[in-house]
Amino acid sequence: MASLFLPALGRMAVCGGTHGNELSGVYLVQEMERQRKEKGDGVWPIPVTTVLSNPRAVEECRRYIDTDMNRCFSTATLSSPMTDSSPYEVQHAQELNNLLGLKGSADAIDMICDLHNTTSNMGLTLIHYSTSDWVTMHICKYLQTKITKVPVRVLVMDVPISDAYSLESVSKHGFSIEVGPQPHGVVRADIYLIMKEAVDMTIDWIHKFNSGTVFEGGDMEAFKFIKSIDYPRDPETRTLTAAIHPQLQDRDFCLLKRGDPLFLSFSGETVTYEEEGSLHPFFINECAYYEKGIAFHLAKKLTLTIPTVQVKKD
Amino acid sequence: MASLFLPALGRMAVCGGTHGNELSGVYLVQEMERQRKEKGDGVWPIPVTTVLSNPRAVEECRRYIDTDMNRCFSTATLSSPMTDSSPYEVQHAQELNNLLGLKGSADAIDMICDLHNTTSNMGLTLIHYSTSDWVTMHICKYLQTKITKVPVRVLVMDVPISDAYSLESVSKHGFSIEVGPQPHGVVRADIYLIMKEAVDMTIDWIHKFNSGTVFEGGDMEAFKFIKSIDYPRDPETRTLTAAIHPQLQDRDFCLLKRGDPLFLSFSGETVTYEEEGSLHPFFINECAYYEKGIAFHLAKKLTLTIPTVQVKKD
Repeated sequence: MASLFLPALGRMAVCGGTHGNELSGVYLVQEMERQRKEKGDGVWPIPVTTVLSNPRAVEECRRYIDTDMNRCFSTATLSSPMTDSSPYEVQHAQELNNLLGLKGSADAIDMICDLHNTTSNMGLTLIHYSTSDWVTMHICKYLQTKITKVPVRVLVMDVPISDAYSLESVSKHGFSIEVGPQPHGVVRADIYLIMKEAVDMTIDWIHKFNSGTVFEGGDMEAFKFIKSIDYPRDPETRTLTAAIHPQLQDRDFCLLKRGDPLFLSFSGETVTYEEEGSLHPFFINECAYYEKGIAFHLAKKLTLTIPTVQVKKD
Repeated sequence: MASLFLPALGRMAVCGGTHGNELSGVYLVQEMERQRKEKGDGVWPIPVTTVLSNPRAVEECRRYIDTDMNRCFSTATLSSPMTDSSPYEVQHAQELNNLLGLKGSADAIDMICDLHNTTSNMGLTLIHYSTSDWVTMHICKYLQTKITKVPVRVLVMDVPISDAYSLESVSKHGFSIEVGPQPHGVVRADIYLIMKEAVDMTIDWIHKFNSGTVFEGGDMEAFKFIKSIDYPRDPETRTLTAAIHPQLQDRDFCLLKRGDPLFLSFSGETVTYEEEGSLHPFFINECAYYEKGIAFHLAKKLTLTIPTVQVKKD
């Protein structure tokens, strides 16, 4: 197969603590900073910028201070005028855009790998915005061959990049990594080690790519976000009347068919899936999504044909 | 074996939301209140008072507003003078003591069952303060025969009742129920159902006891709190340098022997258990204990001989 020639990836950032209580990323970024201090800038085979994205939220071990920072990186929010009453996260998002962007410009950093945890049983999921970012797809494919302890999947949000609101959208080929299940405010060694392996292997892929390695294309599975489903709620008080059904809990990316159980009410009744099309639920029972009115998202499975890629020589 | 005759248990309270982000108890108390509204006061075979213990923390889905309420029920704190600047939880603890106590008095409620969740893999654990509260021991024994999905254990804190600081210490035979693992801020149906079964079976036991059923004694296993162990920390910044070791994570109540792994540092080194005596760790990697400087507690296993009990007739 003919190769697609792509530019080398010059600058990469690894970001943790965009949500201050998702601790694997916080401790991994701090460990990388310790390693750089101990071994010097040559500790990785490519230049890596490390960023603790929301330091005040990390300090307080909260998701955010004023507003969810990972919704602050749309072009509109990044260019909104600042006042003293602007939310802390909006102010800090603009500072990160100055450090790593400017978003959408030729100067934007090549790659942001933004580290997240979820209470959902998502294994290792790479999330990004386009069905045709071959760099991200190849990195996912590479991680699938290297990481065997949990499933590795790619999820595409399919939002125009100017509307894309999360930190990695500032870079040319960014993605976020979700690793779970891990309670927020807790660090589990097993989840930390999976995240560390994913970051190490991403750096490894970029180094190999920049050094001229040819990465073969082929067919690849991806999931595309379709829509969100809320919990059943009391119509007056808006309080939850049901939890995720035990048969659905922890089964992220399973295939939902008509009649499958979705929720179990606190009084014991089962609510079933009644839509026509079969879809794949993910972010099932994610802690941070209760306040957003999301019990889980639904995705459609796609098969993408990705090209063979290698670096463009000057 | 000769029976010990004990007074009937006239009043019982089921409390949830003492920690506002431990959601099984919150939803279970709300469901019990809904059932009472639907079916009337005779819904249970004994009188049950239901209490949402920390309503402001529940509203904000936080552990507490000003201070951990489950440390506010010592005799000293309950009798401390109130001012406008007293912590919300201390004020509200005094109100609950008026409703359910007074602690230590003849008027105190017979039983408080206080509902908690933990991120630790504790199964169902009954926690209370004395190695000779035969009512609690018999309820635990009864739950052990009825609940088969998770281990049921009893843990004794062995603190004098006036120093005992948690809500259930207000009652004559109180205990708290810890069910886990469940992330704080999340409700899992499987954990909710275990908690519901435990409360239903406790009510069932009290009804049978009050009705004259004889409960046979015998030998019983219990765990007694010995001491707490903190995470390894950077001596200057006090930040964690290690997580619970994967071989210890989720193994609450296992037997720790010299040389067993305790922690895995973020740079990859293992820290082992080096004490002489073999003990049992519990509350391993509990989210809320990071700020308290506790990675896990250690307990000693006891075998208690409990007497046969039956109700004292007037």
